[in-house]
Amino acid sequence: MIDVRPHPQATELADLAGRLLSDLRARRPLVQNITNYVSMDIAANALLAIGAAPAMVHAPEETPQFTPIAGALVVNIGTLSASTAKAMQVAVDVAHEAGTPWLLDPVAVGPMNFRNRVVLDLMKAHPAILRGNASEVMAVARLAGLTQEKAAPRGVDSTNTTSEAELSCIALAKHFSCTVVATGEVDVATDGTQVVRLANGSPLMTKVTALGCSLSSVMGAFLAIAPSPLQAASAALAVYGVTGDMAAETARHPGSFRVAFLDTLDAITPADIAARLQIVS
Amino acid sequence: MIDVRPHPQATELADLAGRLLSDLRARRPLVQNITNYVSMDIAANALLAIGAAPAMVHAPEETPQFTPIAGALVVNIGTLSASTAKAMQVAVDVAHEAGTPWLLDPVAVGPMNFRNRVVLDLMKAHPAILRGNASEVMAVARLAGLTQEKAAPRGVDSTNTTSEAELSCIALAKHFSCTVVATGEVDVATDGTQVVRLANGSPLMTKVTALGCSLSSVMGAFLAIAPSPLQAASAALAVYGVTGDMAAETARHPGSFRVAFLDTLDAITPADIAARLQIVS
Amino acid sequence: MIDVRPHPQATELADLAGRLLSDLRARRPLVQNITNYVSMDIAANALLAIGAAPAMVHAPEETPQFTPIAGALVVNIGTLSASTAKAMQVAVDVAHEAGTPWLLDPVAVGPMNFRNRVVLDLMKAHPAILRGNASEVMAVARLAGLTQEKAAPRGVDSTNTTSEAELSCIALAKHFSCTVVATGEVDVATDGTQVVRLANGSPLMTKVTALGCSLSSVMGAFLAIAPSPLQAASAALAVYGVTGDMAAETARHPGSFRVAFLDTLDAITPADIAARLQIVS
Repeated sequence: MIDVRPHPQATELADLAGRLLSDLRARRPLVQNITNYVSMDIAANALLAIGAAPAMVHAPEETPQFTPIAGALVVNIGTLSASTAKAMQVAVDVAHEAGTPWLLDPVAVGPMNFRNRVVLDLMKAHPAILRGNASEVMAVARLAGLTQEKAAPRGVDSTNTTSEAELSCIALAKHFSCTVVATGEVDVATDGTQVVRLANGSPLMTKVTALGCSLSSVMGAFLAIAPSPLQAASAALAVYGVTGDMAAETARHPGSFRVAFLDTLDAITPADIAARLQIVS
Repeated sequence: MIDVRPHPQATELADLAGRLLSDLRARRPLVQNITNYVSMDIAANALLAIGAAPAMVHAPEETPQFTPIAGALVVNIGTLSASTAKAMQVAVDVAHEAGTPWLLDPVAVGPMNFRNRVVLDLMKAHPAILRGNASEVMAVARLAGLTQEKAAPRGVDSTNTTSEAELSCIALAKHFSCTVVATGEVDVATDGTQVVRLANGSPLMTKVTALGCSLSSVMGAFLAIAPSPLQAASAALAVYGVTGDMAAETARHPGSFRVAFLDTLDAITPADIAARLQIVS
Repeated sequence: MIDVRPHPQATELADLAGRLLSDLRARRPLVQNITNYVSMDIAANALLAIGAAPAMVHAPEETPQFTPIAGALVVNIGTLSASTAKAMQVAVDVAHEAGTPWLLDPVAVGPMNFRNRVVLDLMKAHPAILRGNASEVMAVARLAGLTQEKAAPRGVDSTNTTSEAELSCIALAKHFSCTVVATGEVDVATDGTQVVRLANGSPLMTKVTALGCSLSSVMGAFLAIAPSPLQAASAALAVYGVTGDMAAETARHPGSFRVAFLDTLDAITPADIAARLQIVS
């Protein structure tokens, strides 16, 4: 990390996140999602709660007409199959050509060859953001031949920390000219030059299925309206983490936490972010 | 609208809705749904809450045996693909032959050629009800060559009012001999002769994904037990709108509103409808 | 039932369920689910709440690598299609070969020939547990030529009691050398020799979609860590039923009941089970 510049101060980042949040709500970006079956409901609800307009359009017959009019595209490979992989490839190629920024969430990449090949193929269409947990990001870096570090995923979960994944994030960001995000207890985002580390969020977030997938969708909404992918990623992480903190103050178990989380995404203000954002040096 | 008769009085409509609601709960109709992946969970839960029996059966290998025993079929094209389009066509053809009344929800029709063709093909199998938002209904009317009015959809959302869509509704109802429903701030239902306009509901209903899709499913439950499609549509709109009003009194954000909405669908009584129903002249 | 031994005492069963629940939370088994689209969200959330690690991996390209590392596999045929049927067959064959115990939930088996053939084919791969409602279990027994009793399903619901299904359960358990579970007002589990009957649970559980499917997934989590399938089934039924009792004390309608149910799955303790478990002689 010798060549990375210091992260922005918390107040600067909170200010950025607050402005982008207000901007998002004013512009209501259309976010196309090709996502797994588990996350569709909560991803669409998270996008509506934050103030975006979700659309779940995936068919290769439709994406050539739809993806160019979307503000951003989010591709999540959770419940991958041969036919969804093909639909994803068509959509990301259209996105790249049409200039629609897109985000890849490489769920459970690493242990399965089919999924690994799909991820490497998708990466060729130049995602603006790659977002995964620590093990997933490390797996992509290794698959791309950028590191030798072996990730230790367990199903869809990470057993690595984002601190272990940071060099993989930077290597990937440089190699693919994109922003890379690894989420965990500390969330890391980098464009290969600048590194942002945020420490908000609650352990309850890991007890609600697809909350990470929903973060990818919300990050897609910021991607549609932010000046740069790193700013989109940082703002989304700030909003999501502070939302988690606030929701955990009213709900102590996962069923009610999910409800409180969606309520808070709707209610959160720039002032909440300013009061609570925690960054890590 | 010169040729449309005056709508029924609010008390008459509330009375009808209350009686059909009690009838629905007593008869517990079996409602088959071929619906998008986003709405499956909430559509099934809304049907259970109102007192119907949901079934999500879609395979062309199964619908020839299942659709004839269902009380109604609901087809929603949200997350359309070539294979789901084919499955829908098989099911609606079986429904038409077997006499199972069916409802079409043409989600996001308009901007994409593939989806437009699928909708026109499905319409040939004589739906009892066509239900969409204003932009969707206007798009179907234009595709069918009945109007020149251009709809302005934005993703899956409408940017048109149902007042703008009313002539399209009437033209479609007459042309296809079906009941047409456009939902929005004011909900409109017509069989081409009579027009019903209801004004209940809460803006929070647009902040919960697939609540409109769920209305289509609940309307399917009423379709299975009502004397006419227009009565089914009117009763479903009355129940749904009043449920939205009541839920909005206890929940102010989308996460808890969804919970309150399902609770209220279970708890709502004919007296609640009588006390709250608002119609528009 | 002449040849079945008396069921274990309630205290013994509560003790077993409590120990297995603690064990499950300590070991956090990885549970692969190939399940219907309706149940994916709540099944994954129920697994997370109870303390397991859910994974929804179904593609035939991936299961040969994934199923061997899963602690258990749960196959639910709810929204069956030709392609999902093929994916299920690949996965259960891998599971059988690799020694991953697996559970079959034969949703809506009976009225449709396609589904019936799929179930009989899947059964050849030796499930550790077969779990359905009374009508479903009776239908499988009849399809396998073990009884002449005709089940009376209605869509995905049972119109039979588990008491009517008990002989079918025992016959299936003996014929397929597996544990068979029929759930309803009284839940029945048998390995063909011993029969366990539990009487916990709330009618509200039938008003939340896919709560039965989620029980299958939770039972899969116990299957991954229990000494025997019958112990896994009994413990899962005990935990689920008592959770239902407790949730029904705080929620009276289906929307909030679902939230309370997931909260309780997270909060339930062995002491709760010991205090509330009800068995039937």
